[in-house]
Amino acid sequence: MLPESLKQIALFFERLPGIGGKTANRLALYLLRMPASDLQEFAKRLSELKEKTKRCTVCMNLSEKEVCGICEDVKRNHSIITVIESPLDLLSFEKGGIYHGVYHVLHGRIDPLNNIGPDDIFIEQLLQRLIKEKDIVQEVVLATNPDMEGEATAMYIQKKLKAQSEKLKITRLAYGLPMGASVEYADYGTLGKAMENRKSF
Amino acid sequence: MLPESLKQIALFFERLPGIGGKTANRLALYLLRMPASDLQEFAKRLSELKEKTKRCTVCMNLSEKEVCGICEDVKRNHSIITVIESPLDLLSFEKGGIYHGVYHVLHGRIDPLNNIGPDDIFIEQLLQRLIKEKDIVQEVVLATNPDMEGEATAMYIQKKLKAQSEKLKITRLAYGLPMGASVEYADYGTLGKAMENRKSF
Repeated sequence: MLPESLKQIALFFERLPGIGGKTANRLALYLLRMPASDLQEFAKRLSELKEKTKRCTVCMNLSEKEVCGICEDVKRNHSIITVIESPLDLLSFEKGGIYHGVYHVLHGRIDPLNNIGPDDIFIEQLLQRLIKEKDIVQEVVLATNPDMEGEATAMYIQKKLKAQSEKLKITRLAYGLPMGASVEYADYGTLGKAMENRKSF
Repeated sequence: MLPESLKQIALFFERLPGIGGKTANRLALYLLRMPASDLQEFAKRLSELKEKTKRCTVCMNLSEKEVCGICEDVKRNHSIITVIESPLDLLSFEKGGIYHGVYHVLHGRIDPLNNIGPDDIFIEQLLQRLIKEKDIVQEVVLATNPDMEGEATAMYIQKKLKAQSEKLKITRLAYGLPMGASVEYADYGTLGKAMENRKSF
């Protein structure tokens, strides 16, 4: 019953993750009420998106330049590389302002059920980078997600790194109770890790 | 930290209803993985959306033609008009296949807190239509939402309709328990209406 012009837009929205049929219709209808100039600008940006967005040749993060702002920044600590699954993980670290090293973005994780193997993500690029920067890098922090695929990816990378260099320090993020959480509602996996890794006052 | 090309797309998504910052970033990143041709097509459809989508001159529903498919359909019952707030409400009626009359889309509701008065929605067009079709239309069903603004809008239209024609039948949707709901969890407003409008077996 929606006109074709609107329906096609709703169908596109429906292909995006987390957007169902009703929400897609509502979003399409909302677009119709936006100023035409805004829609035109959005359309232009969309059509340019792919060609404008490249990957940083050093850390693989998305960037409009050859080398991204973080890799270029001489004030950051280039001796420590944090390995993450997605550019969105980088945003979380940066928002907190809790980390001043550099990154390596894998753009995925090893996930055999979805046919994603070690060669489908940027592991080789990390190994190559570490050979090139072997006099600079002292530590690699594996910050993949604390779930099955993330753990497996970290294990795989850890082995590869160890085989390549003996003196490199390899760490991973701490597991435990998230801040503000309650013991009562913590799952037993988290609670187990928190107990196992308990620290003395 | 996201490149400008991606950030601008995320910012646009964030303007849409129900989409927060994190979701907007995730959607933008997802677009980047879609085939370029799909993005180009979506961009084209977006830029054409406003000019292609008109309103049906009879019922005010969105349409690519002068008169929409429902108003054109001679097999539908043109003697009964259901008045709804939004084109999305029409989709709900049509999906159920429970209604075979025609519609009138108000494109909003009277909502003084948001500065929307009777002249900002298509009430006048309904009155004009009823004058023109006075020999055809026998009943108007007011199907605005059962909340404060929807009720006020229905009351306002009902008065206007009565003043214009004495023989027109004016009805509204029944209020009561939704199918599949439980009495235990029903709010007292709904339960009150269900009791008030109870029917004998």
